[in-house]
Amino acid sequence: MVASGRPDINEQTQVTDANGGNVKAKKKKKRALGKGTDVIRQFIKDTLKVEFGSLSNIADGAIELSLFFDSKNAELDSFLKKVKEIVESNEVRRLPKIPKGTRDFGKEQMAIRGRAFSIIESVFKKHGAVGLDTPVFELRETLMGKYGEDSKLIYDLADQGGELCSLRYDLTVPFARYLAMNNINALKRYQIAKVYRRDNPSKGRYREFYQCDFDVAGQYEKMEPDFEVVQVLTELLDELNIGEYEIKLNHRKLLDGMLEICGVSSEKFRTVCSSIDKLDKQPFEQIKKELVEEKGLAVETVDKIGSFVKKRGPPLEVLSDLKNVGSQFLENEGSVLALNDLEILFRALEKSKAINKVVFDLSLARGLDYYTGVIYEAVFKGATQVGSIAAGGRYDNLVGMFSGKQVPAVGVSLGIERVFTIMEQLEKERNQVIRATETQVLVAVLGNDLPLAAEVVRELWAANIKAEFGTNKKFMKQYDRAKQNGIPWIMTIGENELKEGIVLLQKVENKEEGFKIPRDRIVEELQKRLNASSS
Amino acid sequence: MVASGRPDINEQTQVTDANGGNVKAKKKKKRALGKGTDVIRQFIKDTLKVEFGSLSNIADGAIELSLFFDSKNAELDSFLKKVKEIVESNEVRRLPKIPKGTRDFGKEQMAIRGRAFSIIESVFKKHGAVGLDTPVFELRETLMGKYGEDSKLIYDLADQGGELCSLRYDLTVPFARYLAMNNINALKRYQIAKVYRRDNPSKGRYREFYQCDFDVAGQYEKMEPDFEVVQVLTELLDELNIGEYEIKLNHRKLLDGMLEICGVSSEKFRTVCSSIDKLDKQPFEQIKKELVEEKGLAVETVDKIGSFVKKRGPPLEVLSDLKNVGSQFLENEGSVLALNDLEILFRALEKSKAINKVVFDLSLARGLDYYTGVIYEAVFKGATQVGSIAAGGRYDNLVGMFSGKQVPAVGVSLGIERVFTIMEQLEKERNQVIRATETQVLVAVLGNDLPLAAEVVRELWAANIKAEFGTNKKFMKQYDRAKQNGIPWIMTIGENELKEGIVLLQKVENKEEGFKIPRDRIVEELQKRLNASSS
Repeated sequence: MVASGRPDINEQTQVTDANGGNVKAKKKKKRALGKGTDVIRQFIKDTLKVEFGSLSNIADGAIELSLFFDSKNAELDSFLKKVKEIVESNEVRRLPKIPKGTRDFGKEQMAIRGRAFSIIESVFKKHGAVGLDTPVFELRETLMGKYGEDSKLIYDLADQGGELCSLRYDLTVPFARYLAMNNINALKRYQIAKVYRRDNPSKGRYREFYQCDFDVAGQYEKMEPDFEVVQVLTELLDELNIGEYEIKLNHRKLLDGMLEICGVSSEKFRTVCSSIDKLDKQPFEQIKKELVEEKGLAVETVDKIGSFVKKRGPPLEVLSDLKNVGSQFLENEGSVLALNDLEILFRALEKSKAINKVVFDLSLARGLDYYTGVIYEAVFKGATQVGSIAAGGRYDNLVGMFSGKQVPAVGVSLGIERVFTIMEQLEKERNQVIRATETQVLVAVLGNDLPLAAEVVRELWAANIKAEFGTNKKFMKQYDRAKQNGIPWIMTIGENELKEGIVLLQKVENKEEGFKIPRDRIVEELQKRLNASSS
Repeated sequence: MVASGRPDINEQTQVTDANGGNVKAKKKKKRALGKGTDVIRQFIKDTLKVEFGSLSNIADGAIELSLFFDSKNAELDSFLKKVKEIVESNEVRRLPKIPKGTRDFGKEQMAIRGRAFSIIESVFKKHGAVGLDTPVFELRETLMGKYGEDSKLIYDLADQGGELCSLRYDLTVPFARYLAMNNINALKRYQIAKVYRRDNPSKGRYREFYQCDFDVAGQYEKMEPDFEVVQVLTELLDELNIGEYEIKLNHRKLLDGMLEICGVSSEKFRTVCSSIDKLDKQPFEQIKKELVEEKGLAVETVDKIGSFVKKRGPPLEVLSDLKNVGSQFLENEGSVLALNDLEILFRALEKSKAINKVVFDLSLARGLDYYTGVIYEAVFKGATQVGSIAAGGRYDNLVGMFSGKQVPAVGVSLGIERVFTIMEQLEKERNQVIRATETQVLVAVLGNDLPLAAEVVRELWAANIKAEFGTNKKFMKQYDRAKQNGIPWIMTIGENELKEGIVLLQKVENKEEGFKIPRDRIVEELQKRLNASSS
């Protein structure tokens, strides 16, 4: 996953046979001892004087070999020593790895991430949400029965005695568990944290990744929190400023009503939904085949479903279509509830100017079991197809699964990894150098005097100036360090400066002559210049 | 661990016997079906008409019981149904838990944590450190052989096919792995993240907790990074402003030299060190017993160790004592190296005014295997004995264990949990109410008009004003919500305001009459007042 810049030690190596020709490369990967393999091969050949690859000599070779491995043979000792050396040097050469599907985030990535998180957090806080932090692993029983088929992707901790635990799969179930455990009836919270899925890693798909969740739990006036969550989602994507997107939106009760109208029996709702959910990736004909052949639906039922799920478009238009006189939805209790919910929601989003980001899409089904009302998913519309970047919905029964007391809730989860990828791409396109540190000055003491450097740099730190220091006697070495790290100022103290009781303050960029500054005025003189350049 | 505010369903319940008297409470905890137990007991009694507790009836009861459990018995069905109901309602009543030794951080705690992290991060950044983020689990082989005896505390992930992984135990080994894997020769980095130890949970000791690490890797002039790391530690503890502390400091090479001088053979260094390390918790006599009886040291050897490890005090004084003419340390090569290192370090810390926080303590040994130079540990000196709050040292061989290429490094790890505990305590003592949100205004639409609320509050959000909204028709309900959450302003729109095209803006605190503000001027009028009250 992560480029180490080194060749894989297991990779196919060319094998040279006894006659100097290349043995035909074998298809199967060879286990090799690393770069030492050829050395060992050569060593054995030289020692045994056996020609490998030549059939007629194999019998002789075997005899010599058995003699060689006699423990009394002095050559054996030197051979084993040689092998040990090679193995050890290979071990050292074998660079460490990290688990598949995980990544380190280095300094430039951290700078971008820091910026994104701060934008996201400020949107959450603007809406009065509070932070929550939960453990990275939960009791296994907490996660069981919440994710349907996806449960197989849950990472378990080993049973080392004691409780059975699993890494969290999302932030929603821990949130519901927290509410239930602490008997909390209402909470608007955000959480930015990593979640874990034992999925097949691929480009842009990780086993450890950040989610940024915003959820509103509690009894509010109808559709208040649903409106706010969708609104927050638009604000997040707008403020991150990463390109065009749309929010597909549907309602679980409308979906169920639709299936009922089409004549699907209720116990098949979930499995039919999971087929419908694939409509953004597969053509309808393929889904139809699955529904008829695998899930046993009648062809006319599937065709009816097909005519419904094609409906998508501007929310208020599609809504008015579904509420038309004679619409079958008006005869279905659940659907009527859903359409009324959606009307209130769409009217509010219209007033908050977010409606143009929303597409009412009857094919949106969402996989998870726990949704009970509106559901939505944000997708990028840019050239690069990164797919879904955020998703969520209403889940009124999840907290009750833990405590028996229903606490209605609705939320959204932003899958920030793809957002990071896009932001990194944009930085590259802008050809901007991302400075990883904010250091303002390098204190360069020219010579072996750490106490002097300590005294000077500490004065700067105490004044909240971001400073680094060095005591190398070569000025150019220190100057280069400042230049490479984008540090704007260098404060030099050599023998002369020390005698005069001054420091030399220079701008790194143009390497101009510099200012001689009395030692007791370094803070104020530097601050003056820093303020001047920042304004 | 976390108070749920509900009685434990397994707790001792009073059992009533057949005669209505209380059966003497049994010492052993009973497994009960929850509150339903008595119901089931009663139901069985009623159904079977058997008097429990009366020996003479047990035989009759057994016969009736076997008849009852005949599958043809219609009563059995209704009995099983009843049991099922009770079990189900009990299941719902059984509140969820989180794993032992882990915690949730609620809104007030998150506010304190956020403040602490921002102080810590700003100190790190002031010193030019960059952020790094690594996966929460590493390949198991990465962690093996790094923690000595403590390896047994590592959390393993279950073997679900694929790689064997473990949760990180600290942030130092992942940092070294990162440097080795990416062939990085120099990096000053910080990382604030959770680590995992399968330790016995107790008050203030958790299985998941934050560490804040600052490390400097790379070849620098002698003792430059060592000085900076100790300096950073003092700045962290000073800026967190949580009370008096001291930094105990020693040097691994001096410790080894001391043991050599005392006549301990080198293969016993590590095990003797781990005994010495307990001197802050146990009296010397106990340690002596362990060293003589368990670890086979001669009594005079241990007494000599005893005379050395008592040495502690102001760094430069203890140093000059050890460098006195005739000191055995001057004849030991490793010790001389260590004393020279320490002299440079102490002179620098003297100039940076941090020396008075440091105690040179020859009994400090530190458990981990990988230290090679200076080692240190910060302890609180306040009334509450929270023990060690930070620790670290130089580890020049750790990166080389991964790549074969040595990258010298030194660092410190702040165990922030105890710091949080102290900060929370201080907040309580100051009797300060910690406001969890920063909401500036509540938009209160008096009636069922979500689109109106959406329109108004969106204007505020767009102007970066932190706002919440409600559409409850009762003003007092909305006013109370603002009051309870410390929201300073309430903006009301009722029928009259709607007709007049205005909103009513009131301060929540004194509930004064309020200002009538035209709908098209709400942002500027509110901002004017927010600015006035914040200045």
